[in-house]
Amino acid sequence: MEEKYSHKTVGRIMTDKVPMIGDNATVGDVESLLLREAANFETINYVYLVAEGKLKGVISLKELFRSPKEKLARELSPEKIISIHVHKDQERAAFLALKNNLKALPVIDKENNFLGVVTSDSILKILDSESAENILRFGGVAHSGSYDNIFSIPVLTSLKHRLPWLVIGLVGGIFTASLVHSFEEILSKNIILAAFIPLIVYMADAVGTQMEAFIIRDLAVEPKLKFFKYFLRQFMIMVIIAVITSLGLYTANLIITQNNIVSLILAIALFVAVISSVLTGLIIPYLFGKLNLDPANASGPIGTIIQDFLSVFIYFTVATYLLS
Amino acid sequence: MEEKYSHKTVGRIMTDKVPMIGDNATVGDVESLLLREAANFETINYVYLVAEGKLKGVISLKELFRSPKEKLARELSPEKIISIHVHKDQERAAFLALKNNLKALPVIDKENNFLGVVTSDSILKILDSESAENILRFGGVAHSGSYDNIFSIPVLTSLKHRLPWLVIGLVGGIFTASLVHSFEEILSKNIILAAFIPLIVYMADAVGTQMEAFIIRDLAVEPKLKFFKYFLRQFMIMVIIAVITSLGLYTANLIITQNNIVSLILAIALFVAVISSVLTGLIIPYLFGKLNLDPANASGPIGTIIQDFLSVFIYFTVATYLLS
Repeated sequence: MEEKYSHKTVGRIMTDKVPMIGDNATVGDVESLLLREAANFETINYVYLVAEGKLKGVISLKELFRSPKEKLARELSPEKIISIHVHKDQERAAFLALKNNLKALPVIDKENNFLGVVTSDSILKILDSESAENILRFGGVAHSGSYDNIFSIPVLTSLKHRLPWLVIGLVGGIFTASLVHSFEEILSKNIILAAFIPLIVYMADAVGTQMEAFIIRDLAVEPKLKFFKYFLRQFMIMVIIAVITSLGLYTANLIITQNNIVSLILAIALFVAVISSVLTGLIIPYLFGKLNLDPANASGPIGTIIQDFLSVFIYFTVATYLLS
Repeated sequence: MEEKYSHKTVGRIMTDKVPMIGDNATVGDVESLLLREAANFETINYVYLVAEGKLKGVISLKELFRSPKEKLARELSPEKIISIHVHKDQERAAFLALKNNLKALPVIDKENNFLGVVTSDSILKILDSESAENILRFGGVAHSGSYDNIFSIPVLTSLKHRLPWLVIGLVGGIFTASLVHSFEEILSKNIILAAFIPLIVYMADAVGTQMEAFIIRDLAVEPKLKFFKYFLRQFMIMVIIAVITSLGLYTANLIITQNNIVSLILAIALFVAVISSVLTGLIIPYLFGKLNLDPANASGPIGTIIQDFLSVFIYFTVATYLLS
């Protein structure tokens, strides 16, 4: 049955070994069902009311225990049942359960047919593996799923997980080097420009990574994000950050070097480079989401490599323009 | 009561509203306790056997339901009870529950007195906030605890969370710039060296961040990590990575530029810089852990800024040595 559903969807992790009851079951009926068949269920935190295959109600065990035996179980179900579609992302199920403080989440199809339940064990495992994946992804370790134990996996496997992004980084670095090389004339006349390459590159990366951190998470929690409003808000914050850091750099550099033109180049380049990080920090992750790719894959190494190239290009273009 | 325990310890989140039973309770006694008082408990996944204040057993509800009413409940408890000390980190509780597939974790003090339970709701929240924190930390957002909603927090608060690391990055960048500046003589004679600054800086960062990603997580799961053995293993992987990437860079650069001496400088500098990332990627996070600071705080921006300075220093020192 599992193979029917794609990788990382809710369908892959749900169980149907849960207590199900009909429309006319009383609290007493349910209690004896539980006492009789507890061993066959994977979870008994909730009892599911199913009529003609459709999910009609969800009753918590605690609610059940505090009610008189002759009461109809269906009267204990809340009006609004929170459930998840079988083809949705596992991560979405975890966030939904978390947001609504639920221990387990019923799974349905388009016609509201009850298919199973994502249990609290599964929700824990999803959150844990997401957490590990996020750390590793920002570290540029090409690997998804469960976490490696450094002592138990072979060195070769570990290299296979770590080398790919490093090789891509190497290639990206060579491209960036040839870009800098193409500005050799202006650079040879103004050697001081070389000194600030790490600063411009670092700052644009840092701002872009901050944006990424927000949008990855916000898209996971709220896939129907109003992008335009979101974009405007983030962009405004980015502009303020760009203004403050550029003014800071201008002032600091003017005091230290007394060189107005270089300070001006640095300030303008930093401003534009920080603003440009909206591309790698916001637009690319969003487009990944739109294309049904995990926006998180746009983060980490790929974003950094593109941003580095862009920042260097902006820096030397500004310098060329102001020095000619 | 909560104030007795420090921030982020298990004591802060445990509840004592759980079913407790004595040594002589039968399964039937427990069932009627649950049916009678379910409303007063925060969780009923497990029943706790407590004698003279000490934790003596843990019985799962499912186990209870499938057993005959006259059986003594204590016979259903496993021999080995997994519990956590009240002063331990919340993160540790979450990993322990996860590792042992438990829905809730009993909390004890040094004398094995039963103090309460960390419920599955709390475990979920810990994992979720850890996950969010990790994303934000790698993004250099100075903030811990619950996740900001971009639409509901004021712009000023958002800036307060994002600017501090950026200002530190700016200061670090100015230091790195003056370091490059001090190598101006060799740089002016070999402008090509400037072109590879981003590559050397990026690669050492990337390898360091990968190491960080592993040690932060490994220390969280296993605080008593055998550091020497761990270090050797990670160091060996690092050396292999350094050899492969250096050889790759040497070969690529020799083919493109036909310049042997520059290719050699790049290869040696990359090798040493990658090896040096053992400091920011492994030793600093470990020392943070030893000093009872969260090793994760050593990651992200601080590590990157130190590593950038170090990499630039290594790069130009190697160049100076080989070109003189």
